[in-house]
Amino acid sequence: MSNYYDVIIVGGGPAGISTALTINASYPEKKILLLREDKVPIVPCGMHYLIWKIKDGQEHEFLCDDTLKNVDLEIEITKVVDIDRKKKTITTADNRVFFYDRLVLATGSLPSLPDIEGKTAKGVFVVKKDFEYLLEIKRFLKNRMKIGIIGGGFVGVEMADLLSQLGKEVILIYPTSHILENSFDREFYTIAEDLLIRQNVKLYPKVHVKRIIADLQNTVKGVELDNNTIIDIDAVIFCTGMKPNIELAEKIGLEIGKQHGIVVDEYMRTSDPNIFAVGDCTEEREFFTRQVTSMMLASIATSEGRIAGSNIFNLRVIRQNKGTVGIYSTIIGNSVFGCVGMTESRAKQNGFDYIVGECKTYDKHHSAFGNSKELYVKLIFSRESDVILGGQVFGSVYVAELLNLIGLCVQKSMTISELITLQIGTHPVLTSSPASYPIILAAVDAMRNQLIQNKIIYCDFLDKESIEKLKTLNPSKRVEGSSESLNVMQAKNK
Amino acid sequence: MSNYYDVIIVGGGPAGISTALTINASYPEKKILLLREDKVPIVPCGMHYLIWKIKDGQEHEFLCDDTLKNVDLEIEITKVVDIDRKKKTITTADNRVFFYDRLVLATGSLPSLPDIEGKTAKGVFVVKKDFEYLLEIKRFLKNRMKIGIIGGGFVGVEMADLLSQLGKEVILIYPTSHILENSFDREFYTIAEDLLIRQNVKLYPKVHVKRIIADLQNTVKGVELDNNTIIDIDAVIFCTGMKPNIELAEKIGLEIGKQHGIVVDEYMRTSDPNIFAVGDCTEEREFFTRQVTSMMLASIATSEGRIAGSNIFNLRVIRQNKGTVGIYSTIIGNSVFGCVGMTESRAKQNGFDYIVGECKTYDKHHSAFGNSKELYVKLIFSRESDVILGGQVFGSVYVAELLNLIGLCVQKSMTISELITLQIGTHPVLTSSPASYPIILAAVDAMRNQLIQNKIIYCDFLDKESIEKLKTLNPSKRVEGSSESLNVMQAKNK
Repeated sequence: MSNYYDVIIVGGGPAGISTALTINASYPEKKILLLREDKVPIVPCGMHYLIWKIKDGQEHEFLCDDTLKNVDLEIEITKVVDIDRKKKTITTADNRVFFYDRLVLATGSLPSLPDIEGKTAKGVFVVKKDFEYLLEIKRFLKNRMKIGIIGGGFVGVEMADLLSQLGKEVILIYPTSHILENSFDREFYTIAEDLLIRQNVKLYPKVHVKRIIADLQNTVKGVELDNNTIIDIDAVIFCTGMKPNIELAEKIGLEIGKQHGIVVDEYMRTSDPNIFAVGDCTEEREFFTRQVTSMMLASIATSEGRIAGSNIFNLRVIRQNKGTVGIYSTIIGNSVFGCVGMTESRAKQNGFDYIVGECKTYDKHHSAFGNSKELYVKLIFSRESDVILGGQVFGSVYVAELLNLIGLCVQKSMTISELITLQIGTHPVLTSSPASYPIILAAVDAMRNQLIQNKIIYCDFLDKESIEKLKTLNPSKRVEGSSESLNVMQAKNK
Repeated sequence: MSNYYDVIIVGGGPAGISTALTINASYPEKKILLLREDKVPIVPCGMHYLIWKIKDGQEHEFLCDDTLKNVDLEIEITKVVDIDRKKKTITTADNRVFFYDRLVLATGSLPSLPDIEGKTAKGVFVVKKDFEYLLEIKRFLKNRMKIGIIGGGFVGVEMADLLSQLGKEVILIYPTSHILENSFDREFYTIAEDLLIRQNVKLYPKVHVKRIIADLQNTVKGVELDNNTIIDIDAVIFCTGMKPNIELAEKIGLEIGKQHGIVVDEYMRTSDPNIFAVGDCTEEREFFTRQVTSMMLASIATSEGRIAGSNIFNLRVIRQNKGTVGIYSTIIGNSVFGCVGMTESRAKQNGFDYIVGECKTYDKHHSAFGNSKELYVKLIFSRESDVILGGQVFGSVYVAELLNLIGLCVQKSMTISELITLQIGTHPVLTSSPASYPIILAAVDAMRNQLIQNKIIYCDFLDKESIEKLKTLNPSKRVEGSSESLNVMQAKNK
């Protein structure tokens, strides 16, 4: 039966690709068909970089199917319009029918554009995983200077960074008090804001766009904010998030969850045992709380693809890590920001009793050593159980893998003690010095804070009498208040 | 008692510094004295870089006590000549006596120079952690062109790389068949050798230096090898390893081990309960075999310092990681090599039943994306228990922290399944793409190899009859031999 495949994958993004790669490794004898709508596959989290970081006319050279070149599978460029779960068939837009044994939905996500007046004007864009569409944005912006970007999340911030570096006048509009405030604590997002301001990006926090103002040709010429400000603008790019693309899944009655993603189990199986779903179109469970969430990251999508791919015919690769940890990094100018798991503010919101450890150091052995750059790490631990809940990093382009190291510490629920005794490799021109390795020193700082907060009552500005009273009231704790030990304590607390 | 200290630390290298830092964090009220012989503390693994990577006359600006600037401790520049374990005192070369409650020996290591004819000639050097001595080497080499480096380990190779970049004619002489062959497999050390050869370094493998030839002024003018070759040379630098500095420890009767290092327990306590020892002067136990070994790395030294520092008055930080993992990285030209734990050849030597997983990719999302560079990862796993035994990395300056990520996988004894489902963060301009993240793809490759080797008997070049026979003999395994599946298998095996 020539139109029969052991596995049919719908979608050719990172989730679909990694599923195909893994099936191929796990079940080399199985016949795989991957169906996708786009001629050129693009890296979703890199889409804005793809468009602006390359020279005019060379865009098409930039994209390729490298990852799949050694993989034994067939690819068809077409749209799937229907699925028959009983017959186990799919139907394409060009009316072909294929039979499957296992089906994988990797249908990704679609940009969500708020329903506001003027949104259909020429010059209003979203960030879509569509190569031709992105080229259209590039062409439109070419001779236009004032660009409004809506959204203060990662994509909005990266777009603002890129366009301001290209000499555009960028206006960044977002409803939150600060950019990236869902992912970083104040110490980090204020640095990010400063960097954008230094690149002449205009920040408009705490406002929504009320309507888009168009001229007589229906081309955008401005936006009106909900505080009634009107800003002249030549183009608007909405970076206001993505929603799971569940059109097919809904049509065939698969279970859809609270976050409007396809519901899957630990092994990415949907409510139909022969259908798996992976990537942005699914819902995840958050690592710490196991709450339903929808994290749309290519790295999570590929991880899900590997789990589905390994287990698609039988459960081979047992998933030990039962929840999804969000690991995000971004670059503004030459500065990199990364976060994993809980921030301090999220820990507080979630009711965690936490302790913080911090370290400021350099990414090479010495500040004067070549082009070393400042490096700042902040770790959050659960106070009583000592387990790491999350971390944030600021530094140069070197910190991306340092972030993954913290990510692994989180996934393995490592404790302060384990981090203090962590064995690492260092090199004078490649890493921080071993005596000031950031993750370890942040753990040492957390231990110090824990000792101070657990065992010592710190009583600055108190007279001798009050100190004696405190000591009587807290027999199990040491009360520090004498001028000498007070100085020591103050030094510790910086 | 003004000459009493709660802790006295002998030695101001990375081990001594990290001990001081950690005691200060764990026991802020304790009084610490650190004694060291050198005016300027230097990073031992960076010593050769320190000397050659900076401009003439700026050397002294380059060194500083940064790490200790916020730490509450006293430092004395002096040599300790005696210790009285009963009275708990130490005596310095300038005849001062200090009392201690706990003593920490961080006396480091000394270069080992083989006992050969002519070794006292002018122009024969070792690599010593002594700033003035290193400046002396620099001065001597200034107008001399032909430099012989003895030793094919990390220090020898880095010295050869540096001096050849400075335009010197470098001759690298070593007894092994290949440089770095104790740390890397063939795929890696051959790249390293090629890089040195391209930098015009002359390689002399499988030879020892028999004698050093000096002129009438007793200045080196050549070396004679044990194959009777004579090479004209203007200077010789021995990079032939270090030995633990146990002079004081031996004098006061502390237990010394098989590798001539001070014997310590899990918490860095010597045979005297009030004396701890950390860093190069101690012996370690190897992670996989628990055999006694002597790994001299600043990163291990600082880790030991932290364990001693946390536990010096009571056991607070329980050491969960019971053995030492060697994590090494080096740079030749712009290429970085890193290794952790077992290589394939060491696994073979040690009798491990192992499986290999490899991945070749790029350190950015796309090969055409900016200045991305090829990245090569090789992982070694135990076949039956699936646990990672080690890894090797080749790539750009970005791979140093990737190596630490593999190091953590080794320390946490992670399995192939865990690595396949590992969650990582990626970014287009900062890391490899999520669909080809090297550690994960190497694990997928290992799984594929395991499946092939465990379940399939691969019978290329066999006729049908032999294949049928094999099938009868191995009912539990699948025998692949048909032309079609054979092609699939061959594709998998590259």
